[in-house]
Amino acid sequence: MSQLKTYAERAALHKNPSAKRLFELMERKQSNLSASVDVTTKAELLRITEAIGPYIVVLKTHIDILSDFDADTAVQLTRLADKHDFLIFEDRKFADIGNTVKLQYSSGVHKIASWAHITNAHIVPGEGIVKGLAEVGVPLQRCLLLLAEMSSKGSLATGEYTLEALRIARRNKDFCVGFIGQRRLEGLIPNETGEEEDFIYMTPGVQLGSKGDGLGQQYRTPREVVLECGCDVIIVGRGIYGSGDLVENAKVYQKAGWDAYLERVGRK
Amino acid sequence: MSQLKTYAERAALHKNPSAKRLFELMERKQSNLSASVDVTTKAELLRITEAIGPYIVVLKTHIDILSDFDADTAVQLTRLADKHDFLIFEDRKFADIGNTVKLQYSSGVHKIASWAHITNAHIVPGEGIVKGLAEVGVPLQRCLLLLAEMSSKGSLATGEYTLEALRIARRNKDFCVGFIGQRRLEGLIPNETGEEEDFIYMTPGVQLGSKGDGLGQQYRTPREVVLECGCDVIIVGRGIYGSGDLVENAKVYQKAGWDAYLERVGRK
Repeated sequence: MSQLKTYAERAALHKNPSAKRLFELMERKQSNLSASVDVTTKAELLRITEAIGPYIVVLKTHIDILSDFDADTAVQLTRLADKHDFLIFEDRKFADIGNTVKLQYSSGVHKIASWAHITNAHIVPGEGIVKGLAEVGVPLQRCLLLLAEMSSKGSLATGEYTLEALRIARRNKDFCVGFIGQRRLEGLIPNETGEEEDFIYMTPGVQLGSKGDGLGQQYRTPREVVLECGCDVIIVGRGIYGSGDLVENAKVYQKAGWDAYLERVGRK
Repeated sequence: MSQLKTYAERAALHKNPSAKRLFELMERKQSNLSASVDVTTKAELLRITEAIGPYIVVLKTHIDILSDFDADTAVQLTRLADKHDFLIFEDRKFADIGNTVKLQYSSGVHKIASWAHITNAHIVPGEGIVKGLAEVGVPLQRCLLLLAEMSSKGSLATGEYTLEALRIARRNKDFCVGFIGQRRLEGLIPNETGEEEDFIYMTPGVQLGSKGDGLGQQYRTPREVVLECGCDVIIVGRGIYGSGDLVENAKVYQKAGWDAYLERVGRK
């Protein structure tokens, strides 16, 4: 039951260096907050990131919506990640065959693998997608999250599909450190390897006081996600940059996520 | 049984202007060949496209693997599409929630909706992905293919997932004109609307004389895909640009695909 351990304990036990690094970071910053900053200009992305950097452990980007992305954007994001001590998660949702995702991850204008510590992938093409991405990511000490479940209405990432994500992750622990999901999955099917396992769960669709967006997004609160469902990192988007004061919003979500975590591990 | 009709007959009957346009084009060029050109520089993409343009009806791109993509790349691709009479299909495999894919489709460095006549999407996030893309694509007279099946090993786009793609397509015919798939789907579940339906099937993983690529891709021949499985457009990648003479390869696949079609509709 890794969710009952503290992040520090999990950092100490984890064999994957990327997972270890994230748990250490969470403990150090007392935060389990990831901000999803879906803006369309470089200046806006950097301005928001500079403001909220002290409160987050993961900056989640959609780099392909930035109309003026250039090589310097990646340089500046990396500088901010170093300055404020967070990791960058490019939410690319890779979804093609192995040979194609290798190129999409390493090449193109965005060269995602060169700056994103974390990325993610759908498993619908089969396990080849993980193998393809790993060929690029493992030598760079990057890590991958699999989309096991989605927060949107009518999501087909359910049932057997979700279980298959768990099986694929178990077979690819050198690269795959966890899931985008709504709850912990380990208990759903026996772990036949017998090895200790501790996947990281990052959960999108987190917001206080909103139920949806009219295009199928469905929200839950930090307490539901962390305390009730055992997830590790809350991903908050429009709750931070949608309205009100950025820094105040980030602080509210950092505290809400951390309090739920402390309650979960019995430290509160 | 729309696959027993000629492309000209299907063009005449179809209500969606994008589908009509593609069927007319196929008849005019006597081709059902789509080339998938997965190269990483603008010069290489334009050189290959210029060479094979006369033989294809659809150029399939992965624009995000071009390291030197710029606004002029889209201008040049559009010029070649006009010159050689083909449509551009950006194989983006959108796979996020509606609000995000709207931005990915319309914005960013690539501005896909501004130049790609056709794009595609996974349905795993639920129907909101189609609604989000349609808000951008319908006003521009673009069209969408849903990924109903994949050609890669261990694909999870099977069974109920594939049927759900058919249901979603039936509910979104103003934008969704067909599928990426391995066979026709209409017969699998009754069409409760009672309306005539004629979806376009485009099939990747087509190659003469190869079985796979070592990263999970599995190949079939044009004859298997068009004659036996009733698909409409064969997507050929490494079979054209992998080795040998580009133009000769394109001619071979154009003839193989067209012959299989003629046999299917009883014209041969």
